[in-house]
Amino acid sequence: MFDSGVGGLTVLKALRERMPCEEILYLGDTARLPYGTKSAHTVTRYALQATVKLVERGVKMLVIACNTASSVAVDAVRRANPGLPVIGVVRPGAQAACRASKSGVIAVVATEGTIAGGAYHRAIHALRPEALILGRATPLFVALAEEGWVEGEITEGVAARYLMPIFDPPSGSDRPSVPDTLVLGCTHFPLLAGAIRNVIGPDVAIVDSAATAADAIQAELRDSGQTNGRDGCGGTLFLTTDDASKFARTGTMFLGTPIAEQDVELVDL
Amino acid sequence: MFDSGVGGLTVLKALRERMPCEEILYLGDTARLPYGTKSAHTVTRYALQATVKLVERGVKMLVIACNTASSVAVDAVRRANPGLPVIGVVRPGAQAACRASKSGVIAVVATEGTIAGGAYHRAIHALRPEALILGRATPLFVALAEEGWVEGEITEGVAARYLMPIFDPPSGSDRPSVPDTLVLGCTHFPLLAGAIRNVIGPDVAIVDSAATAADAIQAELRDSGQTNGRDGCGGTLFLTTDDASKFARTGTMFLGTPIAEQDVELVDL
Repeated sequence: MFDSGVGGLTVLKALRERMPCEEILYLGDTARLPYGTKSAHTVTRYALQATVKLVERGVKMLVIACNTASSVAVDAVRRANPGLPVIGVVRPGAQAACRASKSGVIAVVATEGTIAGGAYHRAIHALRPEALILGRATPLFVALAEEGWVEGEITEGVAARYLMPIFDPPSGSDRPSVPDTLVLGCTHFPLLAGAIRNVIGPDVAIVDSAATAADAIQAELRDSGQTNGRDGCGGTLFLTTDDASKFARTGTMFLGTPIAEQDVELVDL
Repeated sequence: MFDSGVGGLTVLKALRERMPCEEILYLGDTARLPYGTKSAHTVTRYALQATVKLVERGVKMLVIACNTASSVAVDAVRRANPGLPVIGVVRPGAQAACRASKSGVIAVVATEGTIAGGAYHRAIHALRPEALILGRATPLFVALAEEGWVEGEITEGVAARYLMPIFDPPSGSDRPSVPDTLVLGCTHFPLLAGAIRNVIGPDVAIVDSAATAADAIQAELRDSGQTNGRDGCGGTLFLTTDDASKFARTGTMFLGTPIAEQDVELVDL
């Protein structure tokens, strides 16, 4: 599993809850994060480098636990690793959104790179061609989550500034309707779900791409008969491209359980 | 001149105002930005790579137009380039703060990397050993500047949350006194100066490290007789490690004048 940094740990957390026996190798490319503001070409290059590092350690599946990389690099990663299952976080999120939405009006919040790449639009339209999709890049959500400011007046103010034009458009606006579903299309955003909920109200379905990706990973391993049995030790080894102690510290917030610094290995891509 | 991205363009802007005849090569390492959250080891490696790219094009001076890189990598860049003048943004900012402060109580806001490295503390203490320095990492300021949210309620709310504990400590606090000077120790922060001013009031001196660095560069070139005369064309060539059109677009906001995409060259470090 790889991510630009610690955000993908929300996917790891969701996967651990479902599959405690799997051995997981998590690579966070913290020396070059974030991917969300960078071009598709650059993110694809980074994703392929991360993949090489994981494959050389012998993995049975590759998970791209980063929405931006999933948006732009899944095909390139698949081509570079024939025979190895590759799961991104975009398609499972799109499937869950299509299941959750009654009206077919779906909002997606994500990084600039994910929105610009249009991957959620394509994945949702492949399943529901008539869906109306309102995408919005929300880069400050990433900074708020990394700062640990996950609730309160400022965070709700930022959420309102990003989301109110979509969920409460000015009257007289020619927008046909408001969404009944919001996809959190970045692994950082589940941390802000409470503040976002306070802003958009109780009636909008919130789709967490980390949880839906974990479901997809579980289904794929089960269907291909590759699930680890009870003998699996269920350990996690963390690889990072920048400071290991900082990875352990900030990662703990995203994972929800402590990461020991001795479980974090510094690697160079 | 190099920076992690577009923030250093505030230094370029200040320099252009002072020295319109110089030819300037500006490298923004946008593929790996930001530097502010990364370790000293990683930032030093990136700074040395950027330096090599500039030196091979033949420059008479190197400017590290990034507070984080100036904080941790100036010595390494000097050692790697004997004989070439190397100017960072930290020392000029520290000098200006020491001149501006009457009380000797000085606040510094900067990225995590700059604050953790302690370079402003060392530079200020070298000039005023008795100074009391209150440093605060303010990473959301970077995200707000890049998002273009440079004023308004949210930006002032973020500024208040970061700065009020320093400038308006709770009564009964054992903090000896409040600062009379605030150093904007990140090249992104001059964009937020208005909002910061609204929060801290009119009596605090604000030191803009971009402007003070430009003064230092001008003085160094003049003192060493290397100033370009009237024949200099005064052009700027931009190098970037990620998407050139995005560099031109966001860079224009920081530079204050339009950047043409054909003046931006993609390079690989």
